[in-house]
Amino acid sequence: MELGSEALGRLIDEFSRLPGIGRKTARRLAFHVLKADLPIVEGFARALVDVKRLVTFCESCHNITQVSPCSLCEDPRRQDVLVCVVEEPSDVLAIEGTGEYRGRYHVLHGVLSPLDGVGPDDLKIKELLARLHESRPTEVILALNPDTEGDATSFYLQKLLAPLGCVVSRIARGIPVGGDLEFADSVTLGRAIQGRERLGE
Amino acid sequence: MELGSEALGRLIDEFSRLPGIGRKTARRLAFHVLKADLPIVEGFARALVDVKRLVTFCESCHNITQVSPCSLCEDPRRQDVLVCVVEEPSDVLAIEGTGEYRGRYHVLHGVLSPLDGVGPDDLKIKELLARLHESRPTEVILALNPDTEGDATSFYLQKLLAPLGCVVSRIARGIPVGGDLEFADSVTLGRAIQGRERLGE
Repeated sequence: MELGSEALGRLIDEFSRLPGIGRKTARRLAFHVLKADLPIVEGFARALVDVKRLVTFCESCHNITQVSPCSLCEDPRRQDVLVCVVEEPSDVLAIEGTGEYRGRYHVLHGVLSPLDGVGPDDLKIKELLARLHESRPTEVILALNPDTEGDATSFYLQKLLAPLGCVVSRIARGIPVGGDLEFADSVTLGRAIQGRERLGE
Repeated sequence: MELGSEALGRLIDEFSRLPGIGRKTARRLAFHVLKADLPIVEGFARALVDVKRLVTFCESCHNITQVSPCSLCEDPRRQDVLVCVVEEPSDVLAIEGTGEYRGRYHVLHGVLSPLDGVGPDDLKIKELLARLHESRPTEVILALNPDTEGDATSFYLQKLLAPLGCVVSRIARGIPVGGDLEFADSVTLGRAIQGRERLGE
């Protein structure tokens, strides 16, 4: 018995199954739990199970929520004419964190990836089309990750949405704010030059 | 409602309370849990609570265990004449991992630290003395961390154990195996020179 305790070994196994948590970190976390007070650990355990039991997906934007439609879809102060398409619920969180966007969202739950067997039917694309046909926004902003799959999905959506007649835009690529030109990779720098903005407008 | 879900926010809070887990990692872990299957998440939650409910301390060596005395104290194949004194249960695990030691252990649950108000009575030192008086080992190995508190505690124990008449040793300090002399700090390098071993013995 490696640890003198099967329960501790089991917890270390559970922690090390989490993404980015190695064996040593898992051990450190498990010993932390061992030293924590029981009510705190019980609260943690409850939070884990509650996330699975209580969290569902919004029938309209497919973001995570506890009540459907979600608060972002129901909020009367947000603009219906703007729809921002993202890959994952965590992207909604990231964009909301900027405070720069007051429109609606649509979560695809992935991107097209033929190699991984992910086609249009595996994403919430049908639902997006149906929704846009009904709500008729003036602009759809594609905020997918700037990688091969994200770009391919953006291209696919751009073609698909063209008949709707609304503006389809994509979030800007460029040098990160606070970044350093010297250390930017050449692709990003190239995009930043292509996408240069005229000042004084 | 930042997240569209109070339960997810609560889980992110719980994860970010763990040592070394920042807000971003906590968010990533919470989304991982959200996507995992319910039985897996329930298993994780159970493992957390089980560690608090099932794990106790060995009445002899004070290591963590589910039955007292623990399997390390009960194992008839281990040598009673050697006792290795460590700070924490995780240190037992680390030493067992080497496969180099087949004696008994004693876990102090900390080191002397007057600034933090940790005195001899806060550690399992009384219990160590009582145990050594009874079992009369030939050697006590002090395997405390090589820092100020660990060194002070080793010094204190060395004086305390002198009347027992057994050998009191301390694990070697030196250059880590696979390390590089150039990058070793001068204190470690100095200790490595002081503690040099004669070859061919």
